[in-house]
Amino acid sequence: MKLHGNPLSTATQRVLACLYEKDVEFQFVDVDMGAGEHKSEKFLSLNPFGQVPAFEEGDLKLFESRATTQYIAQEFSDKGTQLLLPGSNKTMAVLQLWKEVEAHQFDPPATKLVYELRYKPFFGLTTDTAVAEENEAKLGKVLDVYEGRLAQSKYLACEHFSLADLHHLPTVQYLMGSSAKKLFDSRPHVSAWVAVITARPSWTKVQDMVKQKV
Amino acid sequence: MKLHGNPLSTATQRVLACLYEKDVEFQFVDVDMGAGEHKSEKFLSLNPFGQVPAFEEGDLKLFESRATTQYIAQEFSDKGTQLLLPGSNKTMAVLQLWKEVEAHQFDPPATKLVYELRYKPFFGLTTDTAVAEENEAKLGKVLDVYEGRLAQSKYLACEHFSLADLHHLPTVQYLMGSSAKKLFDSRPHVSAWVAVITARPSWTKVQDMVKQKV
Ligand SMILES: N[C@@H](CCC(=O)N[C@@H](CS)C(=O)NCC(=O)O)C(=O)O
Ligand SMILES: N[C@@H](CCC(=O)N[C@@H](CS)C(=O)NCC(=O)O)C(=O)O
Repeated sequence: MKLHGNPLSTATQRVLACLYEKDVEFQFVDVDMGAGEHKSEKFLSLNPFGQVPAFEEGDLKLFESRATTQYIAQEFSDKGTQLLLPGSNKTMAVLQLWKEVEAHQFDPPATKLVYELRYKPFFGLTTDTAVAEENEAKLGKVLDVYEGRLAQSKYLACEHFSLADLHHLPTVQYLMGSSAKKLFDSRPHVSAWVAVITARPSWTKVQDMVKQKV
Repeated sequence: MKLHGNPLSTATQRVLACLYEKDVEFQFVDVDMGAGEHKSEKFLSLNPFGQVPAFEEGDLKLFESRATTQYIAQEFSDKGTQLLLPGSNKTMAVLQLWKEVEAHQFDPPATKLVYELRYKPFFGLTTDTAVAEENEAKLGKVLDVYEGRLAQSKYLACEHFSLADLHHLPTVQYLMGSSAKKLFDSRPHVSAWVAVITARPSWTKVQDMVKQKV
């Protein structure tokens, strides 16, 4: 298995965290995004959208971080952490639901905030405070729903850590190092959940790769 | 099974199309969004995000249109159209990939265009032409990738109609009735695919429900 990506990219980190949770061997291929390598003909043959990450296993070529984690979690269901909820269609539907909530409710404002509050300062650009405020308000409303859910359930989909939680790690980590941290800290169940998921050894390994880049 | 929603909503239409493809009985509960019924306490107990649709089957309460279609397609895998790609993890990964492409590449610009070009005029608001142009450019790039894919494969994920195609129907239909139609028409394989998927009897049934509303 080969993962092509960049350790600073949230989508790459999502797949890295999954690979470390499953404790499977893989080769990481660093894509030099500064040099535009993700728009090269060679990379476009792996992902026609020219975005990281891209994944290869023999003939199988995948992209889109969440399709890739789903494949890895399913293909290596017997190895490492169980990231799915095997069982009835109804149990699996609950995992699917919280994965969709991450993708369609949490990620849009979270990604915009990561861009405004972390990437822009990192690249010497100026944060647009109006955009930041608008998305903090949106994310706050999403986290109100999470607070209610996490008061009933230790993790989002069930009582154990699953892909639904894992998919949040990259954006949550970046936001915990920004002024948006208050949105998490002010909600006790959300705050406890953040502490638990970011403390996972798999995530420390991803963070070690990030540190070598900054 | 009960589906709570509004026939004008793209997310509701996505689940309706799936239910008709699977040819299963269900009850449709019309949510009066004009009266703010989707923000009522009763509706929030079905979907804490206060959005349509919401789905119920006995104890199971679901929301997020794409989690709901996945559940229905899996639970009724023996009924109506086969919307999944049962088989190896690798085959399923390819379906998952194209579902993620719809959700993360196609849907964001498509939804913004539906809002600017269809909903705004419908509600007497003025289209922001700069936003429309920006998103037409983005959608055009996504459709370039689709054109390449559909030159090799009759449908997005494989040689038969699947959830990956179905998820596009609501936004594609709205955009075909707007100035964004040219983006589809100018790409021959995309254009043929649009003709085939919008001609499905399941989709005619959804459109009949829409017509009763406008
Ligand atoms: N939905 C995609 C998003 C991938 C993505 O946005 N990757 C970013 C880095 S996090 C990228 O490659 N950006 C460069 C570009 O879009 O040109 C996924 O989840 O894999
Ligand atoms: N990601 C959700 C989106 C649901 C959604 O945006 N529904 C719209 C109608 S298409 C809605 O209820 N809007 C009202 C609101 O957000 O307050 C899904 O796929 O179900």
